[in-house]
Amino acid sequence: MPDPCVAGIDIGGTKIALAVADLEGRIIEQKRFPARTSERGPHAIIEEALSEIERMLGSAGSRLDAVGIGCGGPLDRARGLILSPPNLPGWDEFPVVQIVEERLGVPALLDNDANAAALGEHRHGAGRGYRHLVYITQSTGIGGGVIVRGELVHGVCDGAGEVGHMTVLPDGPVCGCGGRGCLEALCSGTGIARRARERLAAGASSALSSLSSEEVTARAVAEAARAGDTLASEVWDEMIHYLAVGVGNLFNALAPEAIVIGGGVSEAGEQLFAPLRERVRERARMLPPEKINILQASLGGDSALHGAVILAQAARARRAEPTS
Amino acid sequence: MPDPCVAGIDIGGTKIALAVADLEGRIIEQKRFPARTSERGPHAIIEEALSEIERMLGSAGSRLDAVGIGCGGPLDRARGLILSPPNLPGWDEFPVVQIVEERLGVPALLDNDANAAALGEHRHGAGRGYRHLVYITQSTGIGGGVIVRGELVHGVCDGAGEVGHMTVLPDGPVCGCGGRGCLEALCSGTGIARRARERLAAGASSALSSLSSEEVTARAVAEAARAGDTLASEVWDEMIHYLAVGVGNLFNALAPEAIVIGGGVSEAGEQLFAPLRERVRERARMLPPEKINILQASLGGDSALHGAVILAQAARARRAEPTS
Repeated sequence: MPDPCVAGIDIGGTKIALAVADLEGRIIEQKRFPARTSERGPHAIIEEALSEIERMLGSAGSRLDAVGIGCGGPLDRARGLILSPPNLPGWDEFPVVQIVEERLGVPALLDNDANAAALGEHRHGAGRGYRHLVYITQSTGIGGGVIVRGELVHGVCDGAGEVGHMTVLPDGPVCGCGGRGCLEALCSGTGIARRARERLAAGASSALSSLSSEEVTARAVAEAARAGDTLASEVWDEMIHYLAVGVGNLFNALAPEAIVIGGGVSEAGEQLFAPLRERVRERARMLPPEKINILQASLGGDSALHGAVILAQAARARRAEPTS
Repeated sequence: MPDPCVAGIDIGGTKIALAVADLEGRIIEQKRFPARTSERGPHAIIEEALSEIERMLGSAGSRLDAVGIGCGGPLDRARGLILSPPNLPGWDEFPVVQIVEERLGVPALLDNDANAAALGEHRHGAGRGYRHLVYITQSTGIGGGVIVRGELVHGVCDGAGEVGHMTVLPDGPVCGCGGRGCLEALCSGTGIARRARERLAAGASSALSSLSSEEVTARAVAEAARAGDTLASEVWDEMIHYLAVGVGNLFNALAPEAIVIGGGVSEAGEQLFAPLRERVRERARMLPPEKINILQASLGGDSALHGAVILAQAARARRAEPTS
């Protein structure tokens, strides 16, 4: 008889990641392929993902018990719908859970990718061993997940963990959400690049001046700051100033055992984390400084994929419960 | 045989409130007396409180099973110590739990008064029926309590719920904690009065100009604003602007079913709540506007006393658990 297993799917704007794992959540095989979501539409892409999962199952000689799916919001988690995420044009009210369940004949569970990444880092990454944790993804946008007593907090309308839309500068720049001075507007990769471009356009001289506008990315700003460029250092420093406001506020509100930060910008490592810890300690003074525990995510781009596997484990456990 | 009951003690800077309640937490008798804490010292005051509880028990013909205590922080909750709160001079490492347990021979449980008030409003007040709730006390200072899945979140070093020290204006005025731009510095009763005094000292004309400095309180500002005074209206409006940042951030981070606000400033009622709801909706745009549920506390000055009774129920339940 084939071994039972579960599968995870992480749906991103430019790639789909897949994993087949044993019932303990240990990944047996994983794969990543470009999604070209705007060209092909959701049905073709999900079909490709499911065929690939079937191939992985075949080569592992395994039987599938459940599927977990992480995807950028907004979602209707209870109904298993993907609701027109900005990074997935054409995915409107897409019933991903129903399609997966009907196609594979197993239960499926959907959650947003930041919550999935929080689960992944909590169970297998930098957040291991903490029962009380906030995860922040600092990438193109900023999202997050809140774990209290070992479980995700979803909140009303699954709105918990929208840390990217906390105000960190009351009359600051307009955010994509329509608000002002959100953490995402000031500290996301997009926000960092925009602020650098604004200063360059205002005529400041910098190593970044030789780049085209598209080449002025958060990564380029981090590199130039590391090399001592004044403009880039100011932009980087300002980002950390506002990130410390947001992270400090989470420590003041929740006093988590750790805040784990992942996503592209966090790959700058100590260039981000060392000054951030110092600034947060100035803002969360009700806690002893040594309790300000801010960690770099350790699963790299796979946090949400690990989380999707954990969602599959949850879907399997839920199915196994007696429905008395 | 006498009916079993529990008692709650709410220790404030200027008053002690006491209650004796049945095992369901229904208050049988309650009393409040001035504490004059700085004159008499903690031992005399606690002795007076315990004698009064014994008198209340005698007249009710009840047997005491447990005591709950709410007190301003900092505390060492695990060890049952009150650690030099700013509003209780002379209460240094005061072992209130041990003293109560030895004197009355029943288990006692201590928590900070904002957490106690959160429990009180959650079980018996404006927060009834919500499993996921933030309570904010907007009084001389600003404190709070966070309830997730029906239980208080304490966090590391019991630091959760320190919402008064969330930054709402990154380079704002210095707060008592040493930080800058904390919610408490801008929106507490003390903060409101200070900002009004600063404007008066700068020479602005106002109905408040005829008052002595001590008479310029948050209540006086609220009253003058209601009467149409320009300076007072500006101070009040500015306070709501920053309070909306803090409250909005809590909705973004946690998406609670409700945020309940108590304390002296909140007694302004709709003069506070109506504009606050509107502003928070502009800052927590990831939630549908109708889910921004901001409520005035309904137990008035008794929120924390009700919470102390709930702590006593918890102390009793803990004692009743088999210690296998």
